[in-house]
Amino acid sequence: MKDIQGGVCAPLGFKAAGIHCGIRKNKSKKDLALIVSDVMCHAASTYTLNKVKGAPIAVTKQHLLNGEAKAIICNSGNANTCNPNGEDIANAVCGLCAKELGINENDIIVASTGVIGQPLDLVPFENHMNELVQALHSQGSSDACEGIMTTDTVKKEYAVEFEIDGVTCHIGAIAKGSGMIHPNMATMLAFVTSDVNISKEMLNEVIHEVVDDTFNMVSVDGDTSTNDMLSVMANGLANNKEIVQKDESYHIFKDALMYICELLSKGIAKDGEGATKLLTCHVNNACSQKDAKVVAKSVITSSLFKAAMFGKDANWGRILCAIGYCEASYDVDKIEVTLASSAGSILVCQNGRGYPFDEDQALKILSEDEIEILIDLHDGNYQATAWGCDLTYDYVKINGDYRT
Amino acid sequence: MKDIQGGVCAPLGFKAAGIHCGIRKNKSKKDLALIVSDVMCHAASTYTLNKVKGAPIAVTKQHLLNGEAKAIICNSGNANTCNPNGEDIANAVCGLCAKELGINENDIIVASTGVIGQPLDLVPFENHMNELVQALHSQGSSDACEGIMTTDTVKKEYAVEFEIDGVTCHIGAIAKGSGMIHPNMATMLAFVTSDVNISKEMLNEVIHEVVDDTFNMVSVDGDTSTNDMLSVMANGLANNKEIVQKDESYHIFKDALMYICELLSKGIAKDGEGATKLLTCHVNNACSQKDAKVVAKSVITSSLFKAAMFGKDANWGRILCAIGYCEASYDVDKIEVTLASSAGSILVCQNGRGYPFDEDQALKILSEDEIEILIDLHDGNYQATAWGCDLTYDYVKINGDYRT
Repeated sequence: MKDIQGGVCAPLGFKAAGIHCGIRKNKSKKDLALIVSDVMCHAASTYTLNKVKGAPIAVTKQHLLNGEAKAIICNSGNANTCNPNGEDIANAVCGLCAKELGINENDIIVASTGVIGQPLDLVPFENHMNELVQALHSQGSSDACEGIMTTDTVKKEYAVEFEIDGVTCHIGAIAKGSGMIHPNMATMLAFVTSDVNISKEMLNEVIHEVVDDTFNMVSVDGDTSTNDMLSVMANGLANNKEIVQKDESYHIFKDALMYICELLSKGIAKDGEGATKLLTCHVNNACSQKDAKVVAKSVITSSLFKAAMFGKDANWGRILCAIGYCEASYDVDKIEVTLASSAGSILVCQNGRGYPFDEDQALKILSEDEIEILIDLHDGNYQATAWGCDLTYDYVKINGDYRT
Repeated sequence: MKDIQGGVCAPLGFKAAGIHCGIRKNKSKKDLALIVSDVMCHAASTYTLNKVKGAPIAVTKQHLLNGEAKAIICNSGNANTCNPNGEDIANAVCGLCAKELGINENDIIVASTGVIGQPLDLVPFENHMNELVQALHSQGSSDACEGIMTTDTVKKEYAVEFEIDGVTCHIGAIAKGSGMIHPNMATMLAFVTSDVNISKEMLNEVIHEVVDDTFNMVSVDGDTSTNDMLSVMANGLANNKEIVQKDESYHIFKDALMYICELLSKGIAKDGEGATKLLTCHVNNACSQKDAKVVAKSVITSSLFKAAMFGKDANWGRILCAIGYCEASYDVDKIEVTLASSAGSILVCQNGRGYPFDEDQALKILSEDEIEILIDLHDGNYQATAWGCDLTYDYVKINGDYRT
């Protein structure tokens, strides 16, 4: 498996585009994205578990009942959530897009991200759908990625090449994250394309397996969004023998998808609103997989711990505190905590008690922009990893006045 | 029932003191507090559910096995948590205090608050226990309150007078809060005194009933501390007929205790680390008490919502989002949200959808320093209230470098 360029257009048969259509006032910011496959794809999605759901999610669920799709359309600047006519608008967007592409509107995945509870005007879509479709290009992934960004500061766009049975295959992806990021069984917006030939059932299976270990292990601010969605479209153009069971090919595809989703997850965590640091929490030797995950996610979600990381403060007591209040099994007296970065590593807690450490060295380690928190529970054989970011002045600034 | 002065010394037979003994470097900050009753009290406590618990909690639990206590000693500046010899130190502090007071060390409630995982030196206690006991005074409540404060900026000290069967009774209280505040079945540190005559069983019963509706409904930052504790000592000197069952007298006492604990809870929320606003979330017409509480607490805990309140931004979509991801039953399409303050009130969401409102009026309402969020679920007859504060630059500043 190797990293390649091209994002969602790296797999065979995909084109993408991103334009400014006028949903946002800032004309230099793209606000509409489109990804299209030349041929019909097997497609699957996971969605937010928030009971307040964006209208596009209801429409996409309906469209994916048959497990097939040809295109994804997504706007930023407005979440189309808690609006009286949200589903009508989402359906109308699909209708406009289908007409312009000459496809069936039921084969379109639709998504929105932005402010909740403000009516979404159809006019910008009407006026610019032709322009959007004309802009479709095999190098259009970056434009599409820009089109879905909100307060994101960097593009989250990745692709890999790998082999199944001697056949070259690809996966490409774009995602947006930043704030309201604490996925639960689903994710922020992430769109994944692949030319792998895989059955609908196996595709649906694999994305749930992957999401639990990647997007669901990220937290920026503990707030699970109303519009989280991961969609995968696989068009089969790589021409491998169709994956119809959990055989070696399935696992090769799963590993590649896991790798891409992990890159997206880390990218989203590192670009969390106001973030200056990527925090990676590895929990080792837990007595179950679930316990490992719960501990890792609790630490990565703690506001106090996140603020300490912003301040480069090796305040490991807050890590113990966050382990202490989570719903997991472990023995407090066995917990070991090490802080690490490219500048080195330092043991700060052993047997659940403070371990004398050099504050200057800790400061040096915590001054890097990627920090690892290594928690050894000495209580079993399971491990998990979670990703997050620090809590900064800029998070408050960005969210103190998001709508204006 | 009427508000009175005197804090924990307002009930008959209580004295208190607070001094600087040297746990903190800043000599102008008191760091040791003592509350003593002239006679033996019935006493009960609730404790943090964090599995990482401060050493003083283990010692206090042991001392309260017989439901009796005469004194409370509490230091700030060091939590005495995750230390190898924490319990030995907590026992030694009780020993020193008992000797100086001439009482049994098993009759002392001990508590600590401050940094986790730094050894607590016994020397300051040894050198200043005599001074502390000499300072005991019937007007000493404020000094004791100062002695337990950490990043608190105002004293949380209250007292009430009320009648049971024609007998005048009192309850007094002090508390500290500020950060790491998200109590679970227990609380930050709160010490309550009373001269009411009440059985051990009824005292234990009433504090659990009251805590669930008061301290457990506060969140500053979602982090449940390792040292949370509410202790109540009732010495019976008011001379009412002993309360031994849930009769009218029990309910009068419960109402007074509820009133005091609600004042402390609001005080702690308003003085949350970096806070500029007290946020009160009332949930009405839920289909159960639990659903009402879960919704209220989810809203009050959302970082995104808290940051919006700091920015005076009527971003009600974040309220809907926080309702959506909590574990409660309701009908999204019936939710109504009103924002209110002393400057007026404004409906922002009806039937789960945006309701057109005047942004200028919303700004005026949100510019006050006490904001009410009124959520009507139109789904039953239960209600609950939760308290919190906004998320500000100063929260990040305070917690970015707490230890130094």
